[in-house]
Amino acid sequence: MSKTMLAAVLHGIKDLRVDELPVPGLEPGKVLVRVRRGGICGSDVHYFEEGRFGSFAVTAPFVLGHEVTGEVVALADGVSQPALGERVVVNPSRQCGQCDYCRSGRGNLCRNVRMLGSASTKPPTHGGFSEYLLVGADQCFPVPPQIDDGVGAMIEPFAVALHALKRAGSVVGKPVIVTGGGPIGLLTVIVARACGATTIAVSDPVAERRQMALQVGADSAFDPTEASFKEQVTALTGDGFEVLFEASGAAPALRQAFEVVRRGGTLVQIGVYSAPEVSVPVNQLLVRELQVIGSFRYGPVWEEAIRLVASGRVNLQPLISRVLPLNQAPAALALACAKAGVVKVQLDLL
Amino acid sequence: MSKTMLAAVLHGIKDLRVDELPVPGLEPGKVLVRVRRGGICGSDVHYFEEGRFGSFAVTAPFVLGHEVTGEVVALADGVSQPALGERVVVNPSRQCGQCDYCRSGRGNLCRNVRMLGSASTKPPTHGGFSEYLLVGADQCFPVPPQIDDGVGAMIEPFAVALHALKRAGSVVGKPVIVTGGGPIGLLTVIVARACGATTIAVSDPVAERRQMALQVGADSAFDPTEASFKEQVTALTGDGFEVLFEASGAAPALRQAFEVVRRGGTLVQIGVYSAPEVSVPVNQLLVRELQVIGSFRYGPVWEEAIRLVASGRVNLQPLISRVLPLNQAPAALALACAKAGVVKVQLDLL
Amino acid sequence: MSKTMLAAVLHGIKDLRVDELPVPGLEPGKVLVRVRRGGICGSDVHYFEEGRFGSFAVTAPFVLGHEVTGEVVALADGVSQPALGERVVVNPSRQCGQCDYCRSGRGNLCRNVRMLGSASTKPPTHGGFSEYLLVGADQCFPVPPQIDDGVGAMIEPFAVALHALKRAGSVVGKPVIVTGGGPIGLLTVIVARACGATTIAVSDPVAERRQMALQVGADSAFDPTEASFKEQVTALTGDGFEVLFEASGAAPALRQAFEVVRRGGTLVQIGVYSAPEVSVPVNQLLVRELQVIGSFRYGPVWEEAIRLVASGRVNLQPLISRVLPLNQAPAALALACAKAGVVKVQLDLL
Amino acid sequence: MSKTMLAAVLHGIKDLRVDELPVPGLEPGKVLVRVRRGGICGSDVHYFEEGRFGSFAVTAPFVLGHEVTGEVVALADGVSQPALGERVVVNPSRQCGQCDYCRSGRGNLCRNVRMLGSASTKPPTHGGFSEYLLVGADQCFPVPPQIDDGVGAMIEPFAVALHALKRAGSVVGKPVIVTGGGPIGLLTVIVARACGATTIAVSDPVAERRQMALQVGADSAFDPTEASFKEQVTALTGDGFEVLFEASGAAPALRQAFEVVRRGGTLVQIGVYSAPEVSVPVNQLLVRELQVIGSFRYGPVWEEAIRLVASGRVNLQPLISRVLPLNQAPAALALACAKAGVVKVQLDLL
Repeated sequence: MSKTMLAAVLHGIKDLRVDELPVPGLEPGKVLVRVRRGGICGSDVHYFEEGRFGSFAVTAPFVLGHEVTGEVVALADGVSQPALGERVVVNPSRQCGQCDYCRSGRGNLCRNVRMLGSASTKPPTHGGFSEYLLVGADQCFPVPPQIDDGVGAMIEPFAVALHALKRAGSVVGKPVIVTGGGPIGLLTVIVARACGATTIAVSDPVAERRQMALQVGADSAFDPTEASFKEQVTALTGDGFEVLFEASGAAPALRQAFEVVRRGGTLVQIGVYSAPEVSVPVNQLLVRELQVIGSFRYGPVWEEAIRLVASGRVNLQPLISRVLPLNQAPAALALACAKAGVVKVQLDLL
Repeated sequence: MSKTMLAAVLHGIKDLRVDELPVPGLEPGKVLVRVRRGGICGSDVHYFEEGRFGSFAVTAPFVLGHEVTGEVVALADGVSQPALGERVVVNPSRQCGQCDYCRSGRGNLCRNVRMLGSASTKPPTHGGFSEYLLVGADQCFPVPPQIDDGVGAMIEPFAVALHALKRAGSVVGKPVIVTGGGPIGLLTVIVARACGATTIAVSDPVAERRQMALQVGADSAFDPTEASFKEQVTALTGDGFEVLFEASGAAPALRQAFEVVRRGGTLVQIGVYSAPEVSVPVNQLLVRELQVIGSFRYGPVWEEAIRLVASGRVNLQPLISRVLPLNQAPAALALACAKAGVVKVQLDLL
Repeated sequence: MSKTMLAAVLHGIKDLRVDELPVPGLEPGKVLVRVRRGGICGSDVHYFEEGRFGSFAVTAPFVLGHEVTGEVVALADGVSQPALGERVVVNPSRQCGQCDYCRSGRGNLCRNVRMLGSASTKPPTHGGFSEYLLVGADQCFPVPPQIDDGVGAMIEPFAVALHALKRAGSVVGKPVIVTGGGPIGLLTVIVARACGATTIAVSDPVAERRQMALQVGADSAFDPTEASFKEQVTALTGDGFEVLFEASGAAPALRQAFEVVRRGGTLVQIGVYSAPEVSVPVNQLLVRELQVIGSFRYGPVWEEAIRLVASGRVNLQPLISRVLPLNQAPAALALACAKAGVVKVQLDLL
Repeated sequence: MSKTMLAAVLHGIKDLRVDELPVPGLEPGKVLVRVRRGGICGSDVHYFEEGRFGSFAVTAPFVLGHEVTGEVVALADGVSQPALGERVVVNPSRQCGQCDYCRSGRGNLCRNVRMLGSASTKPPTHGGFSEYLLVGADQCFPVPPQIDDGVGAMIEPFAVALHALKRAGSVVGKPVIVTGGGPIGLLTVIVARACGATTIAVSDPVAERRQMALQVGADSAFDPTEASFKEQVTALTGDGFEVLFEASGAAPALRQAFEVVRRGGTLVQIGVYSAPEVSVPVNQLLVRELQVIGSFRYGPVWEEAIRLVASGRVNLQPLISRVLPLNQAPAALALACAKAGVVKVQLDLL
């Protein structure tokens, strides 16, 4: 094995370079993964375009990426799972397994979590857009042959959608709306359909995204900026949706959400807001007995996500718009930023 | 409207006659339904073959049937829903709406429930295999045009399966097994698949039923009488199923259930046992922390059931094996008794 | 029985008169109750002081009151429960028992609900501050002798607190805070303590209310207007409360709530806001995975509420500050408006 | 620190000796605890009397005990919690924190669990009846001064009861029965009372245990061998208990359980059966829609258990019947075996 590897390193705003870095050495409990495919996430785009993601500012150059498929090429002593040579997807969120949150099944709230490709630490933690990646053995989930590298790298964002679905409680037989037709919104449509939601609507001001939503399984799509939006929704559902997934992070969407959810309904927040605060009609919570549920990354849903994909119950392939080689990483990021005509852009690291 | 109607009346064991009865008169809060289609349930078969169903013995002649689609032809004063002329499926279980069970959403345990076509009351309560049927307005659920009369008459047994699914908690991404490939077992396969279960297995000693299970969506089917049954299951799931639906009512199936469910798993009981007691390995409950959940008829799942069918998420058509006219009701019952080659036999009452 | 009765009728703002009205006649399914005690609720105070409660404006004179204990003095034909002569508390919220919300255990969201003593209907619906009251048989819950008339009339607001507790999920062993030390806040303290909450804190700017909270079972009480409020909370809990009940309806309390709840925590909204909208830090929902749960009146908790009180697990007596006879109803309302020195003011109707 | 320590070692049936063993050396991630108090559990009694506990046979001498309070006297490098000198209770069940069960909050079902003082491994794993004990840092939970050493050593069995309570769902306002008045049964009474159960009954054939149950908070106590048992229960509850905790492991208790639980009710299994199988009326599960829930050791309830005890919400002191010094360990075990007049026997290791 070579001692160096190529990696897509962010040096500053819109300054992404493919650098040569040392291959990391093994550490106890860890495995070395030869990365094969990596997807570009919205947070990568924010780091690239703005040098920050929410409150996390980039303080030093770091490798982007946290949606990866790879192959296990070396194991620390005593590690038996995953096996050498196994193809895996990587949970980029390393949880301690010992704090009160981890012990109670809420590892996404772990007190000692460390996220790949993130500026939440100082210095930032390197991510997965590199030929080799060192991760905890328990962060690796083997994937069967019917999941190819590209779809494998979609498992991470799919896990976000699946976790949101579980936070909602059951959607079986219920009318559901997803506000926001970006990658997470579309994945939420896909998982809601696979899990028994009946009338699935999507709202997005962009026609292209509404079209895509219909292609991946939405039953109807609305433009929320139209004056007749609320009448259209009412015509469809009678008295509103039972579950709304807010995947846009747009303040008007949240305010509108209170109008299109039926009494007793559930609003799940997945999108990150650029505004620090949003004004909401709080008495609606009470008199219509709503619940507003935050959903953060993913709880322990990885095995389930893989089974849903491997069994063919969901098809993530249509969301992969473009795949570029690692040495075109800057162009790939630029494509992902432009958003027009693409859902998910991936890097091929082979 | 005629003052008399034809109905399939059970007079004794294997003595079913098509009699002429008076059309019932309206009562407050009720509607008169012109029955169009009626499905034959296992309980109808038991009454017909044995003169009893479990502890309910037939004490007087009564009209069988409780799986029906019909059209509303008269309304009591003040009833506005359903509308006159609307096509509806009928919830045969009339709940009081006022007892503590009803108020807490468990109307299937209602203290004052009355079931159509049942010998649980003395005299028995007439059922739906008659041209006209008088039921409470709140027992009627309108069905859209894409649900035809035959599929409409499948909603009642489908509601049994849907209720069992909800009693199980979520099946999303989980390996599930259904023991027993009769109508309820098959409907459970269908609903589990529509609600995100991944590996769905069925066990039944009858090859024809295993075949049918595979046709309606099971991923694999096993013969539980084979010596290698447990090894086959282990090969498939690693350490067992997370949810098992016991739809056979066979004592060996229940005992086997404790072996094929993984630690922490859930066993839902839907099938009725002919044996009054079954011996079970109780310490397994404790050391493997299982839960065994009874499921009785249906909670408030009718709207959801109709939406799942109307949206095309589930297809119940393949389960309808034969449709005979009302005047051949005795032959239809005999067919349903024979079981060979049929899943669901229905009566056409038009 | 006399044909007329006395009742406290609201004619306009601060214009409450004790009028002579006809005793209502029996109707099917109903019972006549001789009211013995009635508690004054915050909504009564709003109607009295402002001529409206939230969006409900008083359009005609009506009898106030919906927290009552009484005795059953006449039954409609066919009613067997409650029994004649039985002492009962009345659920003032009449639910239809047949709509989808009622059938699924969420009768508080009933599509056809009618509330006693409320201007939500036009004309308003008469309430319980009258010598006789006609209500549905299923609105009456018998109370055992250890619950006297005064405590009986506390069951209605206690049901509000108990419902909120259930909406929160379990509080067992959890640190809990109640923001707002009015009657509902204090009842929430009482029920949280009886149900296993450990560290129970109350925040209220009024010293007298903090004192009362400590008397009825809070472990500590804070002034939320103090600059060190957040440090005090942190000193107490380490990383915040797991459950917060917002019982004040004050916008600053809701904003503060997001700061004092720990990651993964739950915020239950019980208080009604005077402001139509409140600006909240929405990303906290997401990155700290909170849930904000509305709680409206009461689900089917009445039997449980009565058992908790009758068993002595909770003691509601200390909250009854003053009891005045019906003919002093205007003075009683004025006392309740003043708030100083009183928690609950009741009317004695005997 | 001495290099050797005294420990109560089981060499064979009824052959317990106080031996001198080497003090264990530190290992990564672990802490050394100076044990102060240890409680004798039913499993210790089984090992002592029968040389086995259920299917776990003693294959080599080992130190008994797993209910302990101690003081942290040495820390492995890098361990910061618990602090040196801190008084702690020890979770004797060491979970891996990385398997699918651990990650989903069900560490009690951990695939790699190791239990102190247990013959489930070969050779057996040493327990806590020794002056020093080496355990994982994350197995230690600091206790505040108001929990003394004796009560601290009760936290482990209390966690069993608290976990069972949580498996039951809410008991708020519900009539509850505990079958079996041994230590776990009594702890279940205590925790049910602290968490809002109203009518709490206990059934046990031994008068002394019924008496003790009433002392620690049961509202009534029954002898299940009396012919009128079922009538007594009916007189108390009308139609049965909503939750039953089976803490006896006696087959007749389980069969009786199906008779005294109301429709829709919950049966939680905590007691270990000596019989491998018990015959149960399975159709009751279905037609009365019951749930039978296994409860194994404890999920992540330790912080909650400590808060409930430290806050004074529960009082475990009355269950500690006798405390003997370590050098009288054989006598202490004999006392615990005799059962007469004692609930919990503890060893003082100071």
